[in-house]
Formats: sequence, structure tokens, C-alpha cells
Amino acid sequence: MTTLNSEKVFRDPILGFIHVDDSIILDLINSHEMQRLRRIKHLGVANLVFHGGEQSRFQHSLGVYEISRRMIQALDDNEKFANERHWDHENDLLVQAAALLHDVGHGAYSHTFEHLFDTVHEQFTQKIIVDPSTEVNAILKTVSNDFPERVAAVIGKSYPDKRVVQLISSQLDADRMDYLLRDAYYTGAEYGRYDIERILRLMRPIKDGFAFDIAGVHSIEDYVISRYQMYLQVYFHPVSRGMEVVLENLLIRAQEIFDKDPDNPIFFPIIRPIFALKNKIDIQDYISLDDSVFNTAFNIWQKVDDKILADLSKRFLDRKPLKSIVLNEKTKDLIPSLRKKIKDRGFDPKYYTGENDATDLPYESYSPKTGEEGIKFVYPDGQQVELSKLSPLVEAINGKESIDRRFFFPREMLSNPEINQLYLKYKKTY
Amino acid sequence: MTTLNSEKVFRDPILGFIHVDDSIILDLINSHEMQRLRRIKHLGVANLVFHGGEQSRFQHSLGVYEISRRMIQALDDNEKFANERHWDHENDLLVQAAALLHDVGHGAYSHTFEHLFDTVHEQFTQKIIVDPSTEVNAILKTVSNDFPERVAAVIGKSYPDKRVVQLISSQLDADRMDYLLRDAYYTGAEYGRYDIERILRLMRPIKDGFAFDIAGVHSIEDYVISRYQMYLQVYFHPVSRGMEVVLENLLIRAQEIFDKDPDNPIFFPIIRPIFALKNKIDIQDYISLDDSVFNTAFNIWQKVDDKILADLSKRFLDRKPLKSIVLNEKTKDLIPSLRKKIKDRGFDPKYYTGENDATDLPYESYSPKTGEEGIKFVYPDGQQVELSKLSPLVEAINGKESIDRRFFFPREMLSNPEINQLYLKYKKTY
Amino acid sequence: MTTLNSEKVFRDPILGFIHVDDSIILDLINSHEMQRLRRIKHLGVANLVFHGGEQSRFQHSLGVYEISRRMIQALDDNEKFANERHWDHENDLLVQAAALLHDVGHGAYSHTFEHLFDTVHEQFTQKIIVDPSTEVNAILKTVSNDFPERVAAVIGKSYPDKRVVQLISSQLDADRMDYLLRDAYYTGAEYGRYDIERILRLMRPIKDGFAFDIAGVHSIEDYVISRYQMYLQVYFHPVSRGMEVVLENLLIRAQEIFDKDPDNPIFFPIIRPIFALKNKIDIQDYISLDDSVFNTAFNIWQKVDDKILADLSKRFLDRKPLKSIVLNEKTKDLIPSLRKKIKDRGFDPKYYTGENDATDLPYESYSPKTGEEGIKFVYPDGQQVELSKLSPLVEAINGKESIDRRFFFPREMLSNPEINQLYLKYKKTY
Amino acid sequence: MTTLNSEKVFRDPILGFIHVDDSIILDLINSHEMQRLRRIKHLGVANLVFHGGEQSRFQHSLGVYEISRRMIQALDDNEKFANERHWDHENDLLVQAAALLHDVGHGAYSHTFEHLFDTVHEQFTQKIIVDPSTEVNAILKTVSNDFPERVAAVIGKSYPDKRVVQLISSQLDADRMDYLLRDAYYTGAEYGRYDIERILRLMRPIKDGFAFDIAGVHSIEDYVISRYQMYLQVYFHPVSRGMEVVLENLLIRAQEIFDKDPDNPIFFPIIRPIFALKNKIDIQDYISLDDSVFNTAFNIWQKVDDKILADLSKRFLDRKPLKSIVLNEKTKDLIPSLRKKIKDRGFDPKYYTGENDATDLPYESYSPKTGEEGIKFVYPDGQQVELSKLSPLVEAINGKESIDRRFFFPREMLSNPEINQLYLKYKKTY
Ligand code: NI
Ligand code: NI
Ligand code: NI
Ligand code: NI
Repeated sequence: MTTLNSEKVFRDPILGFIHVDDSIILDLINSHEMQRLRRIKHLGVANLVFHGGEQSRFQHSLGVYEISRRMIQALDDNEKFANERHWDHENDLLVQAAALLHDVGHGAYSHTFEHLFDTVHEQFTQKIIVDPSTEVNAILKTVSNDFPERVAAVIGKSYPDKRVVQLISSQLDADRMDYLLRDAYYTGAEYGRYDIERILRLMRPIKDGFAFDIAGVHSIEDYVISRYQMYLQVYFHPVSRGMEVVLENLLIRAQEIFDKDPDNPIFFPIIRPIFALKNKIDIQDYISLDDSVFNTAFNIWQKVDDKILADLSKRFLDRKPLKSIVLNEKTKDLIPSLRKKIKDRGFDPKYYTGENDATDLPYESYSPKTGEEGIKFVYPDGQQVELSKLSPLVEAINGKESIDRRFFFPREMLSNPEINQLYLKYKKTY
Repeated sequence: MTTLNSEKVFRDPILGFIHVDDSIILDLINSHEMQRLRRIKHLGVANLVFHGGEQSRFQHSLGVYEISRRMIQALDDNEKFANERHWDHENDLLVQAAALLHDVGHGAYSHTFEHLFDTVHEQFTQKIIVDPSTEVNAILKTVSNDFPERVAAVIGKSYPDKRVVQLISSQLDADRMDYLLRDAYYTGAEYGRYDIERILRLMRPIKDGFAFDIAGVHSIEDYVISRYQMYLQVYFHPVSRGMEVVLENLLIRAQEIFDKDPDNPIFFPIIRPIFALKNKIDIQDYISLDDSVFNTAFNIWQKVDDKILADLSKRFLDRKPLKSIVLNEKTKDLIPSLRKKIKDRGFDPKYYTGENDATDLPYESYSPKTGEEGIKFVYPDGQQVELSKLSPLVEAINGKESIDRRFFFPREMLSNPEINQLYLKYKKTY
Repeated sequence: MTTLNSEKVFRDPILGFIHVDDSIILDLINSHEMQRLRRIKHLGVANLVFHGGEQSRFQHSLGVYEISRRMIQALDDNEKFANERHWDHENDLLVQAAALLHDVGHGAYSHTFEHLFDTVHEQFTQKIIVDPSTEVNAILKTVSNDFPERVAAVIGKSYPDKRVVQLISSQLDADRMDYLLRDAYYTGAEYGRYDIERILRLMRPIKDGFAFDIAGVHSIEDYVISRYQMYLQVYFHPVSRGMEVVLENLLIRAQEIFDKDPDNPIFFPIIRPIFALKNKIDIQDYISLDDSVFNTAFNIWQKVDDKILADLSKRFLDRKPLKSIVLNEKTKDLIPSLRKKIKDRGFDPKYYTGENDATDLPYESYSPKTGEEGIKFVYPDGQQVELSKLSPLVEAINGKESIDRRFFFPREMLSNPEINQLYLKYKKTY
Repeated sequence: MTTLNSEKVFRDPILGFIHVDDSIILDLINSHEMQRLRRIKHLGVANLVFHGGEQSRFQHSLGVYEISRRMIQALDDNEKFANERHWDHENDLLVQAAALLHDVGHGAYSHTFEHLFDTVHEQFTQKIIVDPSTEVNAILKTVSNDFPERVAAVIGKSYPDKRVVQLISSQLDADRMDYLLRDAYYTGAEYGRYDIERILRLMRPIKDGFAFDIAGVHSIEDYVISRYQMYLQVYFHPVSRGMEVVLENLLIRAQEIFDKDPDNPIFFPIIRPIFALKNKIDIQDYISLDDSVFNTAFNIWQKVDDKILADLSKRFLDRKPLKSIVLNEKTKDLIPSLRKKIKDRGFDPKYYTGENDATDLPYESYSPKTGEEGIKFVYPDGQQVELSKLSPLVEAINGKESIDRRFFFPREMLSNPEINQLYLKYKKTY
């Protein structure tokens, strides 16, 4: 570790200060690839509903780094309670670098983006870390030749030391801990808050990861419930999703135009590679993409000849969401007739309707798929118990996926009284 | 209503400002009986665990008044959504006076106090309101001759207009709404917060009370869960209860001494009537009692000849709680032997041990006992649904009493290694 | 006023909720021109120093609207204290529309932008409001044919009713009241907070505007001091200004390239008009510009042949600020030699250095230039006194311009020990 | 230092957690003398104006301890910046014990109390620490025989190491840092907040104490201004002082009665010694006194035969403050006539009027009286500059005493229109 002459701090409205005393971390923060995250909003389009939610992936990444740093400190402070083994400080920089870089491969509006272009941001994160063309890679290599691969392995969950992986990816990892607090702060949602100071204080190193002193059951129950509520109230919000469907349909239309006419000048050079190559895109071309590039594309496209692309682009920039009704046993049979009415009104359902499922698994005491375990607590005598056994609230949502499935259609259809009535009836039943 | 020349406001750290524009309310606030509540702590002995929790019943009463005032305003603002009937402003002062006075009959350390002296604070509240010897009564009578009785009926839940009663006493009343926020603020607990502004905004008058727009499900779910968590984490805290048992045993001992020797001068005049008459105490003598009087009694008693009374008084003032273990299937058979060891150590179990049950019913969709109903939501089409049907979290705790039952014993017993081990084993399993 | 069926609210992290009950306001919010402000950061480049400060002009505009709405309500509530005349509700919509639209003509990175392109955002704001090509204009015209002109006159301070103007432009207007709170919240600065609820409560209508009850002296002193501190600590921050100088030099270079070769394809269609026409730009072309368009230009330009433009573009996107030293009596003579060393090192001083003055007039009891007066207080007997006469703190800064003048140069120069020493010596003396 | 098995924490609403890992500190907290501070309100009677301000000296003492602990940690973390010498950890426990105990000798309602009984709480603090009859003394002696004296010397400012003294007593000491934040939190005042985390981070050990990195000028300016505002707005509040005058006059009357008839049974045993012996009171008798004892005395006295004592006691308990007007050049000549009218109305001016001066010296760059210096800043090159030279705001209040001098009289006099007019005229000119 190359210690800085003096600690560098960044004022952070959520965590107070972000402390950096390793020059590698400072260099990574200042790298081309990390600075790009300043131009990618953390919440995608949700700021179009919660106008405060304009925070970038950059500040989230700083936050995840800082929380990982505090977790390490907590494990260190609390290792006197450990029965198994102590935290190995060799891993400090590895954890902190992985935390800082965990989202470096995120695309603009990534939810929609990945779906359309068949990209997986986790893979691009790893590529950016191990690709010799990036600044991030060069900085990590100053630690050791295999350090980039080790950092990538931690993010990819294939790193052998599970304790290291858990700090970055688990049901109570630095990533989730940061985004809950941060998204709550910026959106103004009352949910999302929990007692991070207490949770860190009660963290205990165990054999394959970390657990919590039994005194922390209610604080962590509160964290799990807060996350559950943030999903239902913020991340699932039907109006954001009405904007996502606009965005998705607009990109589908653009891709079709590109596929027919790859030389069409509406695809200016910086935006062309993603339409041409999708997930085969060159890493540097990928890194050039950010929210600004897409917004500029939509800005230009709102005046192109293709009526549908122009209209959808304008709807997106001017925040004209599609409206929606819940899809359930009662409503699903109504869709074909609704779709017909939409078509009759002159809207091509391919571009002016959409189905969108929001899902979240709020907590799992054990994941049969991944073998991942739930959050564990330790008693003074060393006995370990999993959270859902201790909290009836968590047990109530354990393993139960939250789902909200909706059919989206143009707002203009609400002038039809029948559709308006249907809309009102199911309006807020989420 | 006698409007004040200019609105009077009180700065409140939780609600911002408390607004008073009716001179009756201002006079009630300034009355002898209300000012007495400044000398009664809202949380009884819980400030001995959460040192910030020193707030008085006086400020809580101002808060309940202010929330009731905002509820009325919300019902008024939102009556355009009402299908049934509008809020009747004739009831404004009635509700506000009942809110302000709802705790006026509370005794010092009332949990213990009522148990020992067989008093019921709700009855004393009503007595103070209707008794012609009180300032409160005289002020209320300036409204109308039967106004004191009407206010008392609202607090006693016998008032015919259930809508009025519900604002003061229900599962989401002004009382609970204030104490959750206030206790959380002063203790520093992370629980107890919820979005009061949103809840008020979504309040809707219905036939027999009030309900909430369906959009408010998550905010109110959050309130119910917050209350549940505050009970388990703050109100049930075993160390407070260890102090309550000391207090209870000390008052039992004092009563025994009084019963044997009613002229004993350790019962100075102001404290004598409650020991002599218990719940038959004269209303003015009751009003003379507050935390200060009892603290002064204990202060004096710590130097009296009766060793047990002196010791318990000193333990109480110096915050020496009894320690405890949970009573459950595994532990209950151990108590007789533990009790014997305590006795062998020279502590009379009658005064140095105790059982204490903390219970709370976090939510009830319907109370078979009282016929009271749960919290209701209205859809745009007027349909009403009760909360537990909409929230799996609330359903998980619906109708299920939280219970924590404990056996308390002197800390000195922990020097016995066997007892210490037992203590540690069950220490934090609440 | 066209009242909405139901009040529309927007969750705001600073003001709680933003309330809209007039359909004109809702339509304005949803207009093309207002939605564009979502893509313009309120703080320009300051988020490159305070990473939380990413809030848009859009949310600021909502905030100014909401505060103007609360001011009107406060004047209404408090008009019983008025000696002169009451608030005229005819002006409600005028004030609110002016508040909402006051920044609608802001350009991207407007500080630098206006300087370079000789545009004045206030003029563009007025143009957008009165130009028949805009959505905003069409919406305002539904009120009355001259309504757009009246709104523009309020923003341009030429509206005859000074009371209306003062709410939007004065030393304690809705604009400043919002941005202080908002910028403090998002940057995490400890300054910038003041007691808005109390200030509104003590607002009193007077003949030509508004004043405050004498009880509010300290709250408003606190507001003035908070603003003073925000300027010195946040808005004057030398690192943001080091980024502004990069931006300015980069745009100067781009303009030179354009002037020589207007057909150069690096000026893609959407960015071309501003370089070609500057402040003569067509209003619709102006409206097309936002932060995203400029960021995309820099993104493209970092790979162009012109080494200087490419390098400065990359420096801007990757946040590589110029370093600086204060310009004062002691340092100003050192600049020529410093400039020479910079040139010798291969940096063209024209593009790699700059002088930048940050200035603010924190308070003026009377402006000889504009005739504008200071903040006034009223005693119960009607007597009026101006703030600086009541507060020694405000008197200490009254009429005194805060100035911070700096010379900026490339960070690379710090490897020269002499320059580094000079830099350290004057580093934090702001 | 005897390290505890596991760190003990106390949840604190202002500082998050209070951390104790030395058993001496824990024993001191649990001592008889410290627990007494739970029954003494920190703000005396100010909770009668700011109803939230009910916090005890006990929690303030925990806060001062915690801040002193963080200061030591900050000095330790930052000693790499020190030119002179490092912090000596030998002093840790000394500083922390002095911080915790600095107010242990405070009396009930001490402002009034000390004036009347000629006691000086600082002297009683030292007595309690060095007197062998106290638990605090016994605990301190387990460290070393002279440890009580050393702790007392630190509090008494006679300890030779000025650096140690400064942490507890200076213009930016742990005491002030805690009470500003704490009083602001509980009263709900908007003033009193400042950035403690940043201030601690910039603390630097210097030769004779501590200074701050030059980057901290604005944070500390903010602290000084906050303190100045808290004094003017909270501590000087004329209504609190109207209650203090009632209290003072009531105790004067009681003393007169006692002096005439020392056996009068209204002086029950626990309250007798202070009237009999004043500052010669036995230390254990002094320790028996707290707010509760005095409140109980007033409670009893409100029914005694002496009309004046009874009336003043009732006024105090029922919060009936005297009203006041400012004493200044314009008003002072009106007092004799006002006093006469009061007498004519049947109020004995001796007991129903009073003059009360509130004074504070907000900041002193150098105290000619004590030789104490102002707050110092260090530049990177080691140069030191005092705060008032760097901040025009601090310079504006440097060395200037804030004074508010008032004449108090019964509220009943306001029914006289002339007096009412006079009262209104000068009402809020503080
Ligand atoms: Ni993430
Ligand atoms: Ni209550
Ligand atoms: Ni603005
Ligand atoms: Ni103190």
C-alpha cells in the first residue's frame, strides 16, 4: 500500500466523509473509466418520478468503497470476538478496489440497455478491469501483475476467499448498504434508512464470512424491511417503468432502422458501434457511452423523418410516460381488446405498448440456486442462527418474490371512458 | 372559539411548531394540571437505559394536540374525496382539547404506580376534567356547561361520534403518532420514524371515522412496523424493566411499613395520602404527586433505618438494575433453584427478585374484545380494504401478541459462575 | 385558475412535498422547455468537487415555485398584521408561474457558456416565455393574451407591482431561499441551512413588498450568514473554478477552429448553431442545448486531430482541474515568470492558464446602483428598521464584496519544486 | 487503564454512540454522584420556554466525555502534522475523567442557586472529586493516590500541562462543543449546529494546546457564530429569565423565613442544610440536593401560610413568568414610576420585580484578564494565525460583550394600558 502524504477526504452527504489514504484508490477514483460514471445516473429513469434522484453511479461507487472500508475496520475492531480467525489485512486493498470498481462497467440506462443490446454489465466491469487498454487496469497492475484478475474475480464471485466476496456481494453487502441509504436520501423516500453505525459495530468475523452479534437482530431486520419497502415504493414505481417502456421501444425502433440502413447518418459515430456490434462492441467504444450520449441521440432523433422514432424520442425527453394497468387474473383477458383499441386509435402496439415485470426477492434464508446463505447471528456461546428464524417479519417475506406485472399503453387512450375507468380501478393497487 | 389576537406558537423539535389560535387551548396549556405534566417523564424509567429519553408528558401532550389539529386540517382539506359526509368543525375544539388533556391524569412512573396503588390513569384523567376543583374544568366550562363531560367522554371512548373518538384512540391515533416520533427522537432509536406528512395527506373522512387513500399502504405499513420495532427494542428493554422491578419492590416495602406504622415520619405529608388511600385519594392530593415528589421520597428513604427500603431506594436513584433471564420452557424450571441461591446469599426474594412480562399487540385487523377495527384504505371507486389484507408484513404480526417474560435477580448473583453462565446464555435473546 | 381534480404532489427531499393545484402550473412543469432543465445541472461543474451536488435546474425550479407558493400563503395568513394593504390573490398565478420559469432560459454550464457566447440567460428566459414557438408560451396564453408578457416582466423586474417582483428577485427571494437549502443538502455542506418555516411565519406584507416581524431578526441574520458562507465555501471553491477555466479554454479553442473552418464535421448539427450565431441563435436551437449535448461534444472531441482541443476535452471529462494560486499584492508579480515557465514546459498559456475572479456581494442595506433596499423588519408599532442596523454580524459584511481572484495553471507544473512551494504556501488561504 | 472485556456503548441522539472501554470511566458513570446529575436539568428553567429542552446534566456529561475522547483520537490521528510534540497517551484517562466529571458539582437550577447560596459549582465539583467521602473519589484513587487531585486541577485550570486543560476549558472545548449541539437538538433551535466531524478532523497538536488546519476557518467561524446566536436566542430568552426572577425571589423569601424561624417545619430535613449553612454545607448534604428536592419544596410551599412564598411557589410550578422590558437609556427613567404602580397594585416590589442581566462574551482573540488566547490556525508552513484575523464575522463580535438588561414585573400590570403600551413597544427588541 502506498500511503498518501495526507489523507484525502471527500465530503459526502450520506456518509459524512469518504476517507482515502491509499494512493491506488485515489488513482482509481481519478481514472477515465471511473470518472465516466459521473455521467450515468444511478437510478436510470427513476429521477423522472422522484425528481431528487439524480445521483450518479460515481458517487454510489465512492459510497460502496467507503462502506467496505468501514466494514474492514469493524471486522478489525471486533476480531476479539472471533472464534475462528482474524481478518487478514492483506485483503484490505483487494476489497476496497473491488468495492470502488464494482459498477465500472455499467451502461447508460442499463436496465433497458442490457436487455436490448444483450450486454451484461458485470461482464463489462470485469473486462474493463482486466483489459490492458484501460487506465484502471494499469493502476491495478502497479500492485501486482495478477491484481486486476483478483479484483475481477472478487466482483465475479469466483474469488476463493468467500469472506472477501461476501463484503461486496451478499444479502448485506457494501453495495446494497450504500444504495439504500443513498437512494432514500436523494429521492426523499422515508424508507431505506437503517442504522448503519450499529450494524457495523455488531459485525463479527466468522469462518466463511461475517455474521452479527445477536444484539443486532432488530437493526438488520430493519435493514431487510427497508430494502423490501424501497423496492415496492421506489424501484417498482409504475411511472418510471412507463418511461422504461418508452425507452425500450424507442431503442427497438432505432435498431430496426439501423439494421435496414447501417449508414443512416442519424447514427453519429459515437453511438454507432453499440447498434452495429451489440455485446461484441469494443471495450473503448463501450466506455464512450454514457447517459449524455444517449440523451443527445434522442435529442437529435426527435427531429428525424421516422415518425415513430421521432415521437418516442420526444416522449422520452419530455417525460411522457406510458400509462399502465396491473396484469393479474382479472385483467389479463382484457388486454387483447385493449390492444385492438390502441391499434384502432393509430398507435402501433409494437412501439406504443409493452409488458414490464418488476421483481425482487427481498430475502432468502438459503438460495437453492446459488447455495448462498442468509444473514447469520452469533450468540455469546458461539451458536449461529439465521435471520428468518429470529424475525417473524423477515420470515413473512423470506423466499417470496415480490412481483408487479403491468401492461403499458399511451396516455391518450384514457380519453376513452371505458379505458379510463379500467385504469382508475386498478390504478394504485401496487 | 375565542380566537387569539395573534397565533401563539411553540417551537417543537419533532413537529417544527405547535400552533395555537384558540384561547381555550392556550389556557388549558397554562393550567396547573397541565403544567404538572412537565414533572412527569413520558418514558417512566426508560431514560435510565436510553439517557436521551428524558422528555415529559407535557411536551407529548402538546404534540398530540398538534397532530390532532393537523388531522382535522387534513380531513378538511381532503373532504372533497369523501363519499359519506364532511368533517364537522363543531368538533374541532372538542378533539383538540381531548388530545391535549388525554394524559392529564397520568401518575409518576405510572406503569409501576398504577399497579401498586390500584389507580387507573384514564380514570384520573376523566376525574380531573370533570371535577369542579380543577383549573382545567373551569376553563372547559367557559365553552359550555357540558363541555368537560364531553371531553371526558371522548377520552373515555364513550362519546357517541366514533369519528371524534378515533382521532384520539385507535390504532393510528394522534397519541401513538406523537409518541413514536417523540420517543425515537429523544432516545436516538433508529426505529419509530415514519412519514407523518404523507399519512396526513392521504387521510380521508369515511362514515364512522377515517381511512386512507390506497396510495398510503406502504407509509402506514411502515408506521405499524415502526411501532412494533419500538416496542421490542425500546419499551421492552430488559434493563428498564430491571429498574421497574426495583421500583415496584421498593414501593411494596414502603407500603408495608406504612401499613404497620401510618405515622412514621418518613411519609412526609405530600406523599402520605397515596399510601393511605390508594385509588380513593383526593383529586387535589393526586395532582400534587409527580416524579419529583417520588424521587425526593427515595432520596430521603435511602437513609432510613429500614435496611431494605434504604437499599432499594439507593439502588433506584443510583441506577442499579436487577439483572434478568428470559422465562421460557427451557428456563422456567431453573427459577426455584435460582431463587434459593438468592435467598442463601442473603437477599430476600420478595424484595430482590421479580417476574415482569412485557406484552404488546402490534396490530389487530379486528378486535373481538372491543369490536374495534383495523386501519382501512379506500380505492378510487370507494371500495374499502383493511391493512393486513394489503401488507404481508402486517399480516405476519396481525393479532399476535409480542411477549417477553423475565425473571429478575440481583446483579451480585453473577459472581456465581453457574448463574453467570446461565445469564450469558440467554442474555440477548430478546 | 383551473383547479386540478385532485392536488398533485411531488416528493421533494428538501421541502417535503411540492404541491400543485393549478393545471396551468402542472402543464408548465410538463412542458418541453421545463423538462429540458432536467438535463442542466444547477451547480454547473461544482459536482466535480462536491460529488453529491448533481441536482438539476429542474428540481430547483420546482423548489422556487413551491417556496413562492408558501410565501403567498404566509402573506395571506399574516395579512392581519398588515397596516398598508392586503395581498392581492389576482397575483398568485403570476408569481408562481414566474417562480417556476425564472431559470427556463439557462444554458448548459451557463457561467462559462454566457461568457463565451455572449448570451444572457435572463434574456433567453424572457424570450422563451414570449416566443410563440414555445410550449410554455402557449400554456401561459390560455390564461390571457398578455400573460406571457406579464410573467416575463416579473422575471425582468420591470413589472410595475414591486411586491410581486420582490418575491422572485430580492435579497430574500424564493430563488435564493431554495438554492441555499438545496445546494447545502446535495453537496453535504454544513452551511446553507436556515429556518425557512420560521421566516415564512414572520413574513408581513408592507406597502411595496414584504418585511418581517422584529422577532425574526436572528433567523434572517442566520440566512444571510449562511448564504455568505455558502459562497465562500462552495461557490468559490478553487477546484471547481479550475474546471471552469478548462471548460472556458476548451470552448475558446473550439470557437477558433469553427471560425476557421465552419464546415468541420466535429461540429455536429445540434451544436453548430451556437458557434455560428452565438447570441443570435434561433430560440429552438438554443432550447436544444443542454449538458448532455456539450458532454457528447467533448466526448467526441477528445479524439479529434486538434491536440489542444482533444487534450482539454479529455481533461474536462476526466476531471483534471487546473491548479491555482491566489492573486494578491504578494503574488501578482510572480505571474509573468510563472507564465513563462508554463510556456517553456510546452503548454500554450492561452489554453492552459487563466485568471478567474469569484465575487459576491453578501448583503446590501441599500444599493446605490439599483435603488434596491435591504431586508426590513417591523416593530409592533409599525416602525420599520433595516437588517444591518439590528445585526452586528450583517453589518460586518454589509456592502463589502467578497472577492477571490486566482491564477490557474496545469497541475504538471507542480513537479517544479519552486512552483510547488509557492502553491503550498498560498494553498488554502481562501 | 483497565480495559473492559467488551466495549460498552450508550446510544446518544446527538453523537450517535458514546464509547467506553476503560472500566474507570464506566465506574465513574455508575457512581452515586454522577447518577445524581440525571436529576438536574442542563438548561435550568429554559425548558419552561423551549419545552423540548429537558435534557439532564448527566447526558451532557456523557457527551463532553465522548467529545474529549474523540479529540484525543483526532490529535492522535493528526499528530503526523505536528511540528512540536505528540499527544501523550498518559493523559488520556485524565482528560476523559475530567471531561466526564466537569459538572459533577452543579447544583439544581444552578444559576439562581449559586447566586442565593453563595456557592460556586466549580468548587463543589472539585470538592466532590477530592473528598474521601465520595464514590467518585474512591474510584479515581484506584488509578493512583494523587489522581483525584490531578483531575480536580484540570477542571480548576491549575494543571500545569495547558494542553490537557484546553481540551476541557477554552473557547473551543469539549464542554461547549457538546452543549451547543445538545441544547440545539433538544430545544429545536435552528442555531447551534456546526460541523463537529470536520473540526475534529482538522485539529492539530501544537506546543501549548491545539490548533486547526487553515482549511477549517469557516467551520470554526460557523461554530463561534452558532454559539453567539444560541446565546442571544436561547440562553438570553426573556421568558426564561422571567422565571428565574420568580425563582430567585421565592428563595429569598424562603431564606428570610428560615432566618427568622429555623425550626419551621416547611424546611424538611433534606432541604434544611442549604438554608442553614449555605456554602458551608456538608458535601454529602450538598449531593442530596437536586431539581426534584427543590420542586418538592415548592410543591409543599405553595400551600404554606406565608402568602408570598406560597404565591411565588405556585407561580414557579405553574410557569407564570414575570414580564419584562429592556433597560436602556430610554427606559431606565421609567422604572421608579413603574415600581410605584406595582406597589400600588399590592405587589411588594422586593418579591415581584427584579432586574436581570444576561451577558456573554462571544469570542476573545486575547483575554487581558486571564491571558487566554483565541482559536489558532496553522498554515502548511507552520505559521499560526488567530481566528479573528481570518474571519470578518468573528472580528465583528470579537471582545464585544452581548448584554441584555431587563426589568421584570408581574404580568397583571399589563392590564394597565399605559404599561401594556410600554411593554409592547420594547417587547421584542432583543
Ligand atoms: Ni452498485
Ligand atoms: Ni399519550
Ligand atoms: Ni434560480
Ligand atoms: Ni458543562
